[in-house]
Amino acid sequence: MASYLVTGASRGLGLELARQLASFPASEVSRVFATARGYAPELEELAKKSSGQVVVIKLDVADEASIKQAEAEVEANLDGKGLDVLINNAGILQYSPNGVNTMDNLTESFTTNVLGVHWVTRTFIPLLQKGTLKKVVNISTTVGSIALARSFHPLPAPAYKITKAALNSLTIQYALDYEQEGFTFFALSPGWLRTDLGGEVADLPVEQGAKASLERIMGAGKEQNGQFLNILIKGWDKAGWRNQYDGATNPW
Amino acid sequence: MASYLVTGASRGLGLELARQLASFPASEVSRVFATARGYAPELEELAKKSSGQVVVIKLDVADEASIKQAEAEVEANLDGKGLDVLINNAGILQYSPNGVNTMDNLTESFTTNVLGVHWVTRTFIPLLQKGTLKKVVNISTTVGSIALARSFHPLPAPAYKITKAALNSLTIQYALDYEQEGFTFFALSPGWLRTDLGGEVADLPVEQGAKASLERIMGAGKEQNGQFLNILIKGWDKAGWRNQYDGATNPW
Repeated sequence: MASYLVTGASRGLGLELARQLASFPASEVSRVFATARGYAPELEELAKKSSGQVVVIKLDVADEASIKQAEAEVEANLDGKGLDVLINNAGILQYSPNGVNTMDNLTESFTTNVLGVHWVTRTFIPLLQKGTLKKVVNISTTVGSIALARSFHPLPAPAYKITKAALNSLTIQYALDYEQEGFTFFALSPGWLRTDLGGEVADLPVEQGAKASLERIMGAGKEQNGQFLNILIKGWDKAGWRNQYDGATNPW
Repeated sequence: MASYLVTGASRGLGLELARQLASFPASEVSRVFATARGYAPELEELAKKSSGQVVVIKLDVADEASIKQAEAEVEANLDGKGLDVLINNAGILQYSPNGVNTMDNLTESFTTNVLGVHWVTRTFIPLLQKGTLKKVVNISTTVGSIALARSFHPLPAPAYKITKAALNSLTIQYALDYEQEGFTFFALSPGWLRTDLGGEVADLPVEQGAKASLERIMGAGKEQNGQFLNILIKGWDKAGWRNQYDGATNPW
């Protein structure tokens, strides 16, 4: 019986994670706090059908005051219990098709992909400390691996790559600071998914990526603290540069 | 006969790099453009003594307009020639002694250590394209290695670590974009030096770190493009976690 909070749940992977979490019985997933910065009709509908299991929370990761407000709402809804799992999913993928020297979106990507995760995490730490699982999952990407940069050079998204590398570093700073308290922090690459962010030609339907992500999230224990994990998709696990589906860890 | 530009040259490693570059004969180092955002008395004195070899340029890496202004001054001084080597040295080390969750300096560190390097680099690319060496050195740190994060956990400077990891990623994006044009971009860890930034208990005097850094910079060729290099200090090259002096490459 665990409670989850998923940021960026208005659409894409975040919405699908909320939907699949809500498909578990309340004895396994007691509450899904699904955050969105604006009105999110699909998420509202999911919440309405869920009979209270899914709770929509207004939260803009780029606005620390809104995060604190959201935390107060979540706390009030938990009736004295803690939050068990935080999934920092909100993120943006911005392009610079004419090369890194034309990149003018680095600060914007940094605010959402790094600073926002930092703010959300530190705001929810007290509720997570009261929780039973103390698990924080930062949705990253193999594309953010500096070691694999050459493989992913054809993707003209330097701000995405740079800020996801920074997110990976942020993840391990938290992992090391909270290890003694029994926390598990890890970065997870959910694969290249068919969402607004991933585009239509991506490798996997979002349902498959969300399912494999939840398997990884639910299966992870303290031995995954500070790691950079891939999902496991059978049949894709040997697919060349798409070794992002091997279920193993990525080089940084 | 090469021209150099060193940012953050008012003090510390940047000042010492400028000083040592100025000790080379003009036949080897024709010009040292040494930048500072404010009045830098030691640098001014170095320039005065150098008979024109050292040129002080006002440049604030956090202000793109000031970088463009600086570039125009450098161009005017080069008499139609290009710039050969750019050393992005300006950087800040900020602490969060009470843990990553108290970190409130991430944006400030990001602006100087990542965005500033991006802005300086792209502004000087046209002059570098006209140069003969096409070398760009980003002063990084082994402390920014995500793979080595556990070793460096005792240093309570998460903003420094996170932004240097992002700088490493930025470096490789440039390295890959400009490889075909014959550029060499690399990240260099100059070691832990006794400067205002490094503190008094650091491993090496700044003179030694600057000397070893220049050996690495002058000795580097295209085969170093996209690498993350350590300086080489004999006697320190086997010193446990201080393997940052082995002259080899660091894991990301």
